Parts: sequence; C-alpha cells; structure tokens
Amino acid sequence: MTSFSNNGARTSDSDRRLIILTEGHTEPVTGKTATCVVRYRPEQVVALLDSTQAGRTTQELLSVGGDIPIVASLDDAPLANALMLGIAPSGGRIPPAWRKIILTAINRGMDVISGLHDFLCNDPEFANAAALKGVHLIDVRKNNERDVASRLNIREECLRVHTVGQDCSVGKMLVALELSNAMKARDISSKFVATGQTGIMVEGDGCPIDCVVSDFLSGAIEKQILEHQHHDVLFIEGQGSISHPRYSAVTLGLLHGCLPQAMILCYEVGRKAVYGMDYMPLKSLVELREVYETMANLMVPSRVIGVAMNSRKVSAEEAEKERERVRQELGLPVCDVIRHGPEDLLDPIQAMLPQTVAS
Amino acid sequence: MTSFSNNGARTSDSDRRLIILTEGHTEPVTGKTATCVVRYRPEQVVALLDSTQAGRTTQELLSVGGDIPIVASLDDAPLANALMLGIAPSGGRIPPAWRKIILTAINRGMDVISGLHDFLCNDPEFANAAALKGVHLIDVRKNNERDVASRLNIREECLRVHTVGQDCSVGKMLVALELSNAMKARDISSKFVATGQTGIMVEGDGCPIDCVVSDFLSGAIEKQILEHQHHDVLFIEGQGSISHPRYSAVTLGLLHGCLPQAMILCYEVGRKAVYGMDYMPLKSLVELREVYETMANLMVPSRVIGVAMNSRKVSAEEAEKERERVRQELGLPVCDVIRHGPEDLLDPIQAMLPQTVAS
Repeated sequence: MTSFSNNGARTSDSDRRLIILTEGHTEPVTGKTATCVVRYRPEQVVALLDSTQAGRTTQELLSVGGDIPIVASLDDAPLANALMLGIAPSGGRIPPAWRKIILTAINRGMDVISGLHDFLCNDPEFANAAALKGVHLIDVRKNNERDVASRLNIREECLRVHTVGQDCSVGKMLVALELSNAMKARDISSKFVATGQTGIMVEGDGCPIDCVVSDFLSGAIEKQILEHQHHDVLFIEGQGSISHPRYSAVTLGLLHGCLPQAMILCYEVGRKAVYGMDYMPLKSLVELREVYETMANLMVPSRVIGVAMNSRKVSAEEAEKERERVRQELGLPVCDVIRHGPEDLLDPIQAMLPQTVAS
Repeated sequence: MTSFSNNGARTSDSDRRLIILTEGHTEPVTGKTATCVVRYRPEQVVALLDSTQAGRTTQELLSVGGDIPIVASLDDAPLANALMLGIAPSGGRIPPAWRKIILTAINRGMDVISGLHDFLCNDPEFANAAALKGVHLIDVRKNNERDVASRLNIREECLRVHTVGQDCSVGKMLVALELSNAMKARDISSKFVATGQTGIMVEGDGCPIDCVVSDFLSGAIEKQILEHQHHDVLFIEGQGSISHPRYSAVTLGLLHGCLPQAMILCYEVGRKAVYGMDYMPLKSLVELREVYETMANLMVPSRVIGVAMNSRKVSAEEAEKERERVRQELGLPVCDVIRHGPEDLLDPIQAMLPQTVAS
C-alpha cells in the first residue's frame, strides 16, 4: 500500500494538510508521534494544536519543523483538512479532554487519524458523527492479523537489520529510518519496515504489531519481511525492550518474526529507569547485548553490530565522552544518528551485504 | 468467577452436559481440549462426536474417561445440552466441515462452547441462529484486556511456579494442574492459574493470554496473579516455548507477567521438531533451561527446579531410562506426573515455601 489506511479510508499524502493535537504534551517523548511526523513529513503539517503553547513554533519545542506554528484552536488553522492525534500514551487511551476537539474536527468535515489502542471507529459518538459528515476515522493500529509465522520462503540474501532497545522511546524508529534513508543515498535498495503507529504514519505502510493478537505477532511481521525482501536491506523498527516489564512480549515476537542478521542497540544517554516506571532500573547495555544475541540466535545467526545513542539531553562534549565510553565498553561503533550522522553504523552494515550489492 | 463465561453467558458446572466435537481428531494432541476436559471433568461429558470413530470409547482412544462413548451424530447423545469444540488447531480457526454441526446444535437449543480464535459470536450465521433460539455462544478466548503490567503489590510470600516448555502441546497445562491438585492434597493452599482455553474450560476461570493484544499480555497475567496471590502457591500454566518460531511472544509475555520464583521444564519424550513445523528442530533441554532462567531473571530471581517428562509414547522401561538420562544431564528431579506421580517435583516446591506454610 502506498499510504496508511484503515476501514477503507485512503488519504493520499499530497492531499493531506494536518493539524496535530498535542495539547499539554508538545515535547519529544510523550509527543513522539507529532515530533516524528513533523521531522519526516513537514510538508503535510499546517500546525500543532496545544493551547498551553500557542504562539510558539515546533522548532522551539521539538527542535524540528522550522516555523510550523503551535495554535490554540482549530479556528487558527483553517487550511488543515485532517486532525492527527499526536501523542502515544502508555496503554494508548484517548485522553478525556480530547473528545470535544475530536468531535469539533469531525463536525468541520475533517478526517481524524489516530494511533491509539482505543479505536475512534469503535466509539459510537465519533462513529455516528463521522458517518453524518462523511469523514474518515483512520485508526492506524487497527488490524486483523490472523496468520502464524511459517519461516518459509525467507530470502537469505536480503539483509535484515533490526533496531533493538534498552527501553521504550529511545529512538529505535528514528534510527531505522535514518539508516534506511542514508543507505538509499548510497544507491543501495533499502526499506524502512514500520512496526508502530508513528512509523506507519511516516512511512505510509507497515504493521502495528503491538496491537496484534499475541499468537499472530511473529506471523504479522513475517508477512512484512516477505513483502519487502526484494530490497537489499530492510531496517526493521524495534519495539519496547526485551527486558521491559510491560512490553517484552512485543519485543521478542518481533525479534523472532523478523529474523535479523544484524541488530543496532539503541539507548538514551542518562536514562536510568524504565520510562513511566521509575521504580524499575534499566538493565546495562552489556547485559542487553548478550540477551538480545541469545534470543535472536535461537532463530538465526545474529549479532549486535553497533550502538545508537540518543544524546538529545546532553551537551556535545558530554555526548562525545559517553560515545567513547560505550565504544570501549562494548567494542562496537557508537553514534547519535542525528548529532553525528549515521555513517559509523552504516559502514559495518554495508560490509555485510553480498559483494554484488555492496560494490 | 466460578465458571468460565463470556458475553454474559453463564453455564454452571452442575447443569452442563457436554457433547464434545472431535470429528476426525479423537487423539490426545490435536484433540487436547477434549482429552483434558474428559480427564478432569468426566462428570460433565455425555459423549464425543466423531463419526469416524463411532462405537468406541474415550478410554480406548484417549486413555481417559472410561466408558464415555464416541458417537456419530448429535442424535446419538440426546441428554447433551451443550456442544463443546474439542480441538485446538494451529491458528485457531473453525474447520469448515464443522459449521453444519454447530448450526444443528444451536437449532436444537444447545449452547456452544469454543476456544478457537475465530469467535462464534462474530459469525453472523451462528449469532443470528443463537439469537433466534436463545442459546449462548461462549467464546472462551474472547477478552478485552487493556491494562499494562505495573509490577506493584505483588505478594512476595506467594510462591509462583510456572510450567515452561520445549514446545507446544507437551503437557504444561496438565503438569500445572496435577501439581496444584497434589499440593492441595498436602493441605497447602494452592491454585491452578489457567492461561489457555483448555485450562480455562477445566478450571472455570483464567485468562486466554494467547488471544490478548500483545501490549497487554503481561498486564493480563499480572491481574491473574494479583487476584489469586492469597494462596500459598500458584501453578501458572505455560504457553508455547521461548524458542517457538510462532509463539515465543506469548511465552515471554507470560513469563515476565507471572514472575515465577520456580519453573518446571516440560517436554515430550521422543519429539525432535517443533509440533506442526517438522523442518524446525527443537532446542535441547540444557539450552532451554539456560534461556528460561536468563529471561526470568531479568525480572525476579528464578530457576528451573525440575523437569516434567511426557512419556505417553514410550514403554515404562524406556521412560525410566530417559528419566535417568535427563536427571544426570540436568542434575534435577524428573518425572512423568501421570506415570510416576508428581511427588518428585512437589517436594522441592514445598521446600521453597515459608516455614509457617510448609510445616
């Protein structure tokens, strides 16, 4: 498919003029959906809607998007034709205060795009209003995956690179996207395989695997691999962490379904505890490398070939010191793909490609 | 809850007179739902329905249930008031040939109980027929789990024992049930925590975790633990295998959600490949013990304390030889809980209980 869609709704990229709802959460972590869409699809974004930050720009608050304004109400962005919900809260529920804004958008004839676990289309009030106005409610996480993995017909020559993490929200999606884009810039056929709602919104296809019924999780990602393995390299977006108290099932099903020959270990500098569970300390990168390799090798020979650090909270000097420390500790290339560029990770990946592709 | 139920239907144990549909699959592996219900709830079972085996008994074909007959049609079991679907095929779909039998049962005024992923209540033909006749369609796997795990308020003194496996369908449910029953016989407060459709049908409560949306899997089993942790010991039914190409997500989410201090490693003597995937060799028990312990210890100190062998396909002599081999190889107690009784596994579990409970 060329644009993400559900329920038969199709909204082509060129037609979409988004206002992204981030009320009270216009910052990069809780507002990661908004931040990533602004970063990778700025041409689609008319404004962000956050009455607590009206008058500022996305560049000021999210470090991306230039002059894209933050506005206080739908009235302030008359050119927008679709409302996107721009946060991804734990559990994926619709904040109660947002209901009125969503209904107003529907009643203005705007499509509404959501990546939450609470489906808009299952909400009678939203569904009735949308039917009356003839607008689409697009639930990016909605799926009906019902196939188990087969492990058959996997193309060995396709290099599958998987971003795995120390925690949620450390940059696994962004790293996979940046590496894929940089590989394309080297004239190598590459594809970013989106596995979460934000990645799907950016890429226009993928599978929302954290919303798949557990028995079919590995089967769902296997289908993505089979669909895209004509490329030379796939960069498969990771989810959660193998040591996450809530989401390790998603992480392992994805790992065992996408069969990576190479993994990139992603973390955020300075984070000590599980995001949203500050009473749960994070496991060390050394321990996690071992666990990821053990688990991946149950299916296919696989190793962690580099570390992607997210250093947005520290200075350039601190980032460089940390980078060197982790290089020494793990004996692997380390970089922040935004701050340093992705070249240090790209080179070892390119070296794994068959000679016919890499030369 | 005291009896399994969905969609508001409640069928109390004492009222239920089952005919179990196993057409063409009256054997212990594909027909494991039937086999386990006959083993643990024989008083509820009027007959099995399998036209290819009519005239025989469950004892002959499943080694349980005594004289419970296999019949050729619903006409041959007029006392039955409910039809149970007795197989658990990979993927959980309703075999097309069964539709007519299900409709006939509904039209006779019988409730229909299913553990498949394809929900009866979502099938318009079944749903309309059931509404007309006023009967209940009970989909044991249907759930709306939407809570993430918190890891809070876990009672440390409650001993959580988890059966983990080399593969699917090796006896994890049966071992947990037998151990729980034997522990009760020692006057220790124990509970079998069912996590699959068959276990739920036998126990009358539990959570069908392989049908929970992935993000909420660990949260769903955590709720079971919190509900039942007033017991001294919980025996939590395992699912799949940590090395299963299809279902490892379910296995890990369950392991990380139920936080076992002790694990029992279950396997079937003679099985060499993944059930239903004969091109995928099984991992060794030694390797699996290490992987299960590594993964469990990410959350809580935990170890494999014994091995449950399923020796139904081999002679007593072969079973004894294998038992001794595995004892030596792993340095752990080993038994077939049916053939040898569960005592060898029960003793080390009882030794882990607080003094006040165990004495």
